[in-house]
Amino acid sequence: MDRLRKHIEQITPLTDEEFDYVRTFFTLKKVRKNQYLIHEGDDTKYEYLVLSGIYKVFFVDNAGKEYIVQFAQQNWWMSDYDAFFKEKEATMFIECMDAGEVLYSTLASREKLSADLHKMEHFFRVKLTNGYVALQQRIKLLLSSTPQQRYAEFSKLYPELIERIPKKFIAEYLGVSRETLSRLYAGKS
Amino acid sequence: MDRLRKHIEQITPLTDEEFDYVRTFFTLKKVRKNQYLIHEGDDTKYEYLVLSGIYKVFFVDNAGKEYIVQFAQQNWWMSDYDAFFKEKEATMFIECMDAGEVLYSTLASREKLSADLHKMEHFFRVKLTNGYVALQQRIKLLLSSTPQQRYAEFSKLYPELIERIPKKFIAEYLGVSRETLSRLYAGKS
Repeated sequence: MDRLRKHIEQITPLTDEEFDYVRTFFTLKKVRKNQYLIHEGDDTKYEYLVLSGIYKVFFVDNAGKEYIVQFAQQNWWMSDYDAFFKEKEATMFIECMDAGEVLYSTLASREKLSADLHKMEHFFRVKLTNGYVALQQRIKLLLSSTPQQRYAEFSKLYPELIERIPKKFIAEYLGVSRETLSRLYAGKS
Repeated sequence: MDRLRKHIEQITPLTDEEFDYVRTFFTLKKVRKNQYLIHEGDDTKYEYLVLSGIYKVFFVDNAGKEYIVQFAQQNWWMSDYDAFFKEKEATMFIECMDAGEVLYSTLASREKLSADLHKMEHFFRVKLTNGYVALQQRIKLLLSSTPQQRYAEFSKLYPELIERIPKKFIAEYLGVSRETLSRLYAGKS
């Protein structure tokens, strides 16, 4: 739970007493490679804070084609947030690509922590602000960029993911073909 | 300012004393058709709460092509949020499409209000939560859907915008051609 405290204190300091209260809202879970944390059709009860490992958040269209919305690694939060906040069935999947550990928590916990501790409401607001800006950037990239620009932007934002994620998934995330991506990796295009 | 109070109290009730404090952070501005609230290259000092009128948030690529990120109408917040939160120069534009009024406020005001009043931190967290989910939905649509699905989803979410915004801008927002959009309007496709 030290990692949780460190994560929160990047945004707001907590007293020992406050953290002892906060920690009761989170549960540790080990995740195996290829294990699903969320599956389309499930009730979406939890959000996850990644302590280690790599995960992909994706959905599948009627034709069975897969679309990656987000990768997640250490200190990222992830869920099918539309379903989580509205307490609906998931329309997305979260699958572990590289084994690790997560902390999970419920919507009721997020709301109670925010109501009880102004500091935690601040923490969640700052995390949402960062998430909002990241999604707006992703929309701009999807709307406009060439494969070269998308790959360059992704490499700049997430250099460590380039090394750790199979190319086919990065191609899928960027919406480019594997052949194009291979040329970009080789620096030939 | 009654409209501001009503807007905030959809999420959290305020005492008269609290609202008298909150209102001091907002300034009213009348906006003419085709007036810019934010222009690429400007310092991004303000965010805007729409009281009336219709606005478009867009960016322009190196070739001069325009991409609409968002439309905004009554009770929506808008800014170039990446630039606003990071206090950078804008990379986007906000232009008024239909005259109206907005309230504007600074990042320092948002942070001070959130720090001073737990209720206002809660208000901004809830608004960000809704915004985050809306952007995630827009990404899912951009990644996967056919023109028909995009138009159907847009009509369902924003029926009043369909009537009020010229077709060419809706086509641009959806990333479909005007010809395709005209067929969809006519219900022939």
